[in-house]
Amino acid sequence: MSAASAHAPLVLGFDADDTLWHNEGLFAAAHQRFHALLASRHDPQTVERALYATELRNLPLYGYGAKGFTLSAIETAIDLTEGRVSPNELRELLDLGRDILAHPVELLDAVPDTLAALHAAGHRMILITKGDLLHQERKIAASGLADRFLAAEVVSEKDPETYARLLRRHGVEPARFLMVGNSLRSDIAPVLALGGMAAHVPYPLTWEHEKLAALPSAPGRFFTLSSIRELPALVARLGDSSPHAPCS
Amino acid sequence: MSAASAHAPLVLGFDADDTLWHNEGLFAAAHQRFHALLASRHDPQTVERALYATELRNLPLYGYGAKGFTLSAIETAIDLTEGRVSPNELRELLDLGRDILAHPVELLDAVPDTLAALHAAGHRMILITKGDLLHQERKIAASGLADRFLAAEVVSEKDPETYARLLRRHGVEPARFLMVGNSLRSDIAPVLALGGMAAHVPYPLTWEHEKLAALPSAPGRFFTLSSIRELPALVARLGDSSPHAPCS
Repeated sequence: MSAASAHAPLVLGFDADDTLWHNEGLFAAAHQRFHALLASRHDPQTVERALYATELRNLPLYGYGAKGFTLSAIETAIDLTEGRVSPNELRELLDLGRDILAHPVELLDAVPDTLAALHAAGHRMILITKGDLLHQERKIAASGLADRFLAAEVVSEKDPETYARLLRRHGVEPARFLMVGNSLRSDIAPVLALGGMAAHVPYPLTWEHEKLAALPSAPGRFFTLSSIRELPALVARLGDSSPHAPCS
Repeated sequence: MSAASAHAPLVLGFDADDTLWHNEGLFAAAHQRFHALLASRHDPQTVERALYATELRNLPLYGYGAKGFTLSAIETAIDLTEGRVSPNELRELLDLGRDILAHPVELLDAVPDTLAALHAAGHRMILITKGDLLHQERKIAASGLADRFLAAEVVSEKDPETYARLLRRHGVEPARFLMVGNSLRSDIAPVLALGGMAAHVPYPLTWEHEKLAALPSAPGRFFTLSSIRELPALVARLGDSSPHAPCS
């Protein structure tokens, strides 16, 4: 944090998938194709329940991302067809995963301008995303946004320990950190638990696993925005009212 | 680097798979099971060639690691059987990958004592490993060695750009960096290309992709050890003869 600035700027963390660029829509489309593949044998609810159960069971070994999703989809298809899945169906499942991995990055509205404004205002920004390492790195490079961030951190899980480690690495006090993201479970709750601030920018689609029934109480530290374009005003307001801001 | 030490200690980088713990043997066993699965249709050489071609083709999308291997094995099995792969064979392929991911970490000989000795001598040590993020993190945690390292970096590719980025992050001059690993392609050549030093500790098995025909010329900067237990003596010798060491 620069001693020359009028007050110590906040450090901003940004989730990537469904915060900076579209992601869940690709998985939703893959689920639709998966339902269609098995539609002659099972209703979509049964297929969806079985796939989700397989994904959760495999999560400790596979982690997040399209490769684990593909393997779980193949396993679910074998289970649900009692092994009578055809070669063309298997090829379709491999394609489902590859299509997610190869899909171009589509930025959400107002993302480049918002990041440019915050960058121009001198904020240190860190991208913090979970999932497949290579895929996330490729999306960061393809986004054209990498230069906005002092670091891009790909992590295997977004829990309080992970955020604490990253904040230590970058010398950021939790009270001066604002995390921005679409997932209450991964972007908001763990940062509030650490004493940080969090801005929730909901995305129209949420994977079941990222949903959360209740947030920790965090008066004055939790904000909901309808678009990322509201972020610079929030950051300016928080900067002005910060306990770390010097008296005028 | 501590100004109090007799001379600036080298910073040591360590590869993990087949340098600190066994890895390629697990993949070799998985390949054997894969050959056995297809043995009634094709000879092992044909199976191996097809699998390797599929892996190379998928590498830009899948990256390294057991999940990508599993997906490539499934794809190869479909191709080589013209789709007549059975459900039990597919389950066996999913198990192949899961067995690699779930396998306990088996340290190579002399690794804990060698790292303890180097740690006691005050060397900063960084673990630098490529592959699946979650799997590598789980292996690092399970190894019991995490405390020896100031950082554990999981990367998607080990090329000169990656090493340059990591050395910048940790404030290490290439000339004061010694990388230790079993892969000429991933651990040795890129570090020599940057002007660093490298100690090759061969492992009995090497994946085709990690082989390398020729190394860059690096007189006085490239060393071959028959075991990691020879490393402390090498490091002591390099420290003594370092151009950065103060005159006595």
